[in-house]
Amino acid sequence: MTAVPASIPSPDPDLLTAYLDAPYADVSALVRAQLAKRAEILDLQIEQPEGEFRETVLEALRDMARTGHTGLGFPQQYGGGGDIGASIASAQAFGYSDLSLMVKAGVQFGLFGGAILHLGSERHHARYLHDLITGKLLGCFAMTETGHGSNVQAVETQATYDPRARQFVIHTPTTSGRKDYIGNAAAHGQLAVVFAQLVVGGEGHGVHAFLVPIRGEDPQPVPGVTIEDCGPKLGLKGVDNGRLSFDEVRVERDALLNRYADVDDEGRYVSSIDDDARRFFTTLGTLVQGRISVGGAALSASKVAITIATRYAGRRRQFGPPGSEREATLMTYRVHQRRLLPLIARAYALSAAQQDLVVQLHESFSFDDREPRDRRELESRAAGQKALATWHTTAAIQTCREACGGAGYLAENRFAALKADTDVFTTFEGDNTVLLQLVAKGLMTQFREDFNDLAPIDMVRFAAAAAVETVMERTALRQLVERLRDAVPSKMDDAGLLDSAYHMGMFQWREAHLRSSLARRLKRGVDEGLDPFTVFAGCQDHMITMARAHIERVVLESFVANVARADESVRPVLEKLVALHALTTIEADRAWFLEHGRLASARSKGVTAMVGRLCADLASVAEPLTDGFAIPEELIRAPIARRG
Amino acid sequence: MTAVPASIPSPDPDLLTAYLDAPYADVSALVRAQLAKRAEILDLQIEQPEGEFRETVLEALRDMARTGHTGLGFPQQYGGGGDIGASIASAQAFGYSDLSLMVKAGVQFGLFGGAILHLGSERHHARYLHDLITGKLLGCFAMTETGHGSNVQAVETQATYDPRARQFVIHTPTTSGRKDYIGNAAAHGQLAVVFAQLVVGGEGHGVHAFLVPIRGEDPQPVPGVTIEDCGPKLGLKGVDNGRLSFDEVRVERDALLNRYADVDDEGRYVSSIDDDARRFFTTLGTLVQGRISVGGAALSASKVAITIATRYAGRRRQFGPPGSEREATLMTYRVHQRRLLPLIARAYALSAAQQDLVVQLHESFSFDDREPRDRRELESRAAGQKALATWHTTAAIQTCREACGGAGYLAENRFAALKADTDVFTTFEGDNTVLLQLVAKGLMTQFREDFNDLAPIDMVRFAAAAAVETVMERTALRQLVERLRDAVPSKMDDAGLLDSAYHMGMFQWREAHLRSSLARRLKRGVDEGLDPFTVFAGCQDHMITMARAHIERVVLESFVANVARADESVRPVLEKLVALHALTTIEADRAWFLEHGRLASARSKGVTAMVGRLCADLASVAEPLTDGFAIPEELIRAPIARRG
Repeated sequence: MTAVPASIPSPDPDLLTAYLDAPYADVSALVRAQLAKRAEILDLQIEQPEGEFRETVLEALRDMARTGHTGLGFPQQYGGGGDIGASIASAQAFGYSDLSLMVKAGVQFGLFGGAILHLGSERHHARYLHDLITGKLLGCFAMTETGHGSNVQAVETQATYDPRARQFVIHTPTTSGRKDYIGNAAAHGQLAVVFAQLVVGGEGHGVHAFLVPIRGEDPQPVPGVTIEDCGPKLGLKGVDNGRLSFDEVRVERDALLNRYADVDDEGRYVSSIDDDARRFFTTLGTLVQGRISVGGAALSASKVAITIATRYAGRRRQFGPPGSEREATLMTYRVHQRRLLPLIARAYALSAAQQDLVVQLHESFSFDDREPRDRRELESRAAGQKALATWHTTAAIQTCREACGGAGYLAENRFAALKADTDVFTTFEGDNTVLLQLVAKGLMTQFREDFNDLAPIDMVRFAAAAAVETVMERTALRQLVERLRDAVPSKMDDAGLLDSAYHMGMFQWREAHLRSSLARRLKRGVDEGLDPFTVFAGCQDHMITMARAHIERVVLESFVANVARADESVRPVLEKLVALHALTTIEADRAWFLEHGRLASARSKGVTAMVGRLCADLASVAEPLTDGFAIPEELIRAPIARRG
Repeated sequence: MTAVPASIPSPDPDLLTAYLDAPYADVSALVRAQLAKRAEILDLQIEQPEGEFRETVLEALRDMARTGHTGLGFPQQYGGGGDIGASIASAQAFGYSDLSLMVKAGVQFGLFGGAILHLGSERHHARYLHDLITGKLLGCFAMTETGHGSNVQAVETQATYDPRARQFVIHTPTTSGRKDYIGNAAAHGQLAVVFAQLVVGGEGHGVHAFLVPIRGEDPQPVPGVTIEDCGPKLGLKGVDNGRLSFDEVRVERDALLNRYADVDDEGRYVSSIDDDARRFFTTLGTLVQGRISVGGAALSASKVAITIATRYAGRRRQFGPPGSEREATLMTYRVHQRRLLPLIARAYALSAAQQDLVVQLHESFSFDDREPRDRRELESRAAGQKALATWHTTAAIQTCREACGGAGYLAENRFAALKADTDVFTTFEGDNTVLLQLVAKGLMTQFREDFNDLAPIDMVRFAAAAAVETVMERTALRQLVERLRDAVPSKMDDAGLLDSAYHMGMFQWREAHLRSSLARRLKRGVDEGLDPFTVFAGCQDHMITMARAHIERVVLESFVANVARADESVRPVLEKLVALHALTTIEADRAWFLEHGRLASARSKGVTAMVGRLCADLASVAEPLTDGFAIPEELIRAPIARRG
């Protein structure tokens, strides 16, 4: 017996939007409407040369600041909205419009503003927050250096305390120590949060953040500061990225953002966190909202591309049965369905995970009593989802451009800017590969803690047991039965292929297996007396595979849980999207499942067949599904996707 | 026992270049040197606005025309070089420099010039070839229409013969019938080869090509012709793409490019090919050199990206063992090796196939006695390799950009233009998906011919047999043994994993299996009484998978054969590249091999492990391998890849 998906009634886009926007429906709708009013920025992005467009983007940024939506994440006493979750929802909505604007706003309010808010203290808040929220004070986030991208701990910029003058001397010792790719630096930024190695009394205390003025009201740099323009980039031409060098620039003692460490009146270094490494990671951890915003905005950009390609596929005709009056629409072709429908499903899946992440962020930052472990989980999840969302975005936009053929190559149809602007999202706010390593290390550390809690006898048993068995102990009998069935090479049925319990079982099994086998490899390396760097380096690909499997499991869990809460009239179609997303993911990694005995050949082929059938089935509702993204027509803008 | 690859001595780049350039070493080196002298075009591409840069490109085109290298493919009597193979080698070298120049030259000399050469007759040659070779006469190739891209047979432009005036009336009946995306049309083209439906005496004869003047010496269109600029594009800003509409434009009778059909003095339609469809495909077939040039130039562009990313990976340091003085280079990381080395191997593999294809083209067009079947094979191979090469290029440039992080995002490091300019290569000269369908149809037709030759009793047996058995009949005993060994789930050894006979066996088996199972599916569809369009549409994904497997086999065959002819001092390293390329391809499709019983789990994991080892092994010679591409330093140009 074959489980053929039933035909699907067209879902109500408004209900899909309500589902996707929860719990920030109001702010999302408001920001979208504000952006729609300023949609001509998308034309200006094409028409204006770089210099002019930078000014356009700055003007748009200040214009949006006047609406108040860019200050949502700041305390109300300084003119903010006091709602960090809503501020991320707002950043996500920015992803529907010009992405230079989104990035410039992200630098100003997320990175620059966020650093002052989270790393500074009352005096910094009082002095700067109001002005930065309103766009009066423009700032930079100067962390990356020419020679130091992912490895922030190795930055070279120095901040040496001069006890006599009670000042810090900010200095760039080498070319590789220049601050590089800094948004808002080349033209507009006045104040920079500079990450530098703090030295007090000849002793290094690691990386700390300092507020350093870089230019005054006039656009010239202040004395001691050299500013270069990074020059033309692949995209984001409205963002003025620059390089900053400091030649013994002096700032007052209160320039240190002193939430976690300070230099006291006697010139002594004091900190609430003793361990340098732990202080460093705590400092960085407070900047998690940037990654979450980037992931969310990237996802929005992918939705624009998917919406345009879906509409085009429903209108564009090419070839067809001989003698028929009209050619067939692209969407009637199997290969075209296969290109677009899984992207729609993945966008919905990642959206669900993003929603949960935003809520988690909001709770973590709105209540001070959270455990450090909760915070680490949040950081890990944010890192992993940022990687998955931005890679999805790069792949989705590419596929959609190709699916629109030559029309997709015209700038007016939006793919040009979407592609170019989002391309760096896989790199900034943390290189995706490095982020997944971070996720893996976090999981293994946590794992090791569990491991260390075991009694010696259990520990031996644990190490000796095959990963499969370890996992099997945790799984329910149903999953055991499933696994046995999957391992039987027969074409007997597709039973369970649409069952989300089956999907979850597969995702969980893969993650657990990769994790325990990685643990064994790491243990073997340590047993052989290798240093941790060599051990980790030797397992790098395994770590990244494991991290990805973990995040994919987390994403699926969110998707399943959120769909269960959706309005019952749209739930059936969403459940099909869950199945399509899960099966597409399993299909993409089916070699691994086959290699590890978790899928038999016939079942594996069944997965592929079912993906094809789900795509065919959902093709008829592809357009309402993308309508659910609620992208204002003014922002969709592409002539090939125009309605009416 | 594990076959660990032996350590590799550094290959001599000059010998690699000699291997890669054969048999067109001289012309390749000459054109590269000419382009190197004009390398500042790469800076102008970044600096100049569209309008200016178009003029720069035109100037560069005429400048290159003066060197004579752009006329290599034309008869000597008109000032050409009389060497079609060398002309493709030249086009490939253009891929190292600015790609607007490459595309503009491709339009002028390949498409416009090629159409006049191959579809026209003596009178057209005498009148136009000299002027077009020297760049005095600029032309367009007006095939695609707004509503008709891949389906050229459906173009709407009309060419109605007026017997009284002995003229053709060229007319655009609808908006969807406008000629669209036409290179050289918006600013510079004077004469267009226009593809239109020929109607003589009220009877339609299908698509034919006509020479239609579109503008004179001044840039204004001639009366009856409307020219629009397509507007800003994702890339190729130096190419003036435009839209052409014709309002009953009259051209003389000899405007018809009359190699395969003509209208005679009495106003009768005459053709050497009776069948309309066959004439159409013969007409299109002569344009095969365009696809081969695009594939070759795309490949060159990928080599630029790969060279830059490889050099960066060898210099850039990030993280490292704690306490060590310097951080580790990116190239020491497994994941980074895994990103770059397979791209190098694939670039070498596709280069070998491209070389063979160029030789095949040269022979096919240099001797008139070739069978139509040979020509069809050439067209099929050209279509398939164009798809593979351009997809490889898109993927390679993306991977290389990400591998260079933020530095990769700066325009000066070349990825910006490489990405944007090549993006449409997967679309123009035939959408890749459509091209693979073409390959599949060609193969199935040929297959059906074989099939029809069988005696009835064999035919039944054939249809009844499993595809596997069909293939097994053809394979040697050695392959049978291999297959049995592969199917035994044991970790016993990696024997044969580096053996190219093993690789070839795997590629051949996959192709044969996909082909015979497709034949059975098609036959079933026909037996069920479905129309051919529905039958093909139902198997579209299977067809494309099969076509890809076919071309991948063809590519591997070329690679293996070419390496066998290489200088013995570089042969060992090239053999490792063959193994890496073959195993990476098998690894990417190992799910399929597992599903079809051609790989066992242990062996499959062994493939992955061996790919990792080969990458690690080849990492030390990655830079000399890319030096073999012989890209002049002036054209590499990226500061992050600069030497000395």
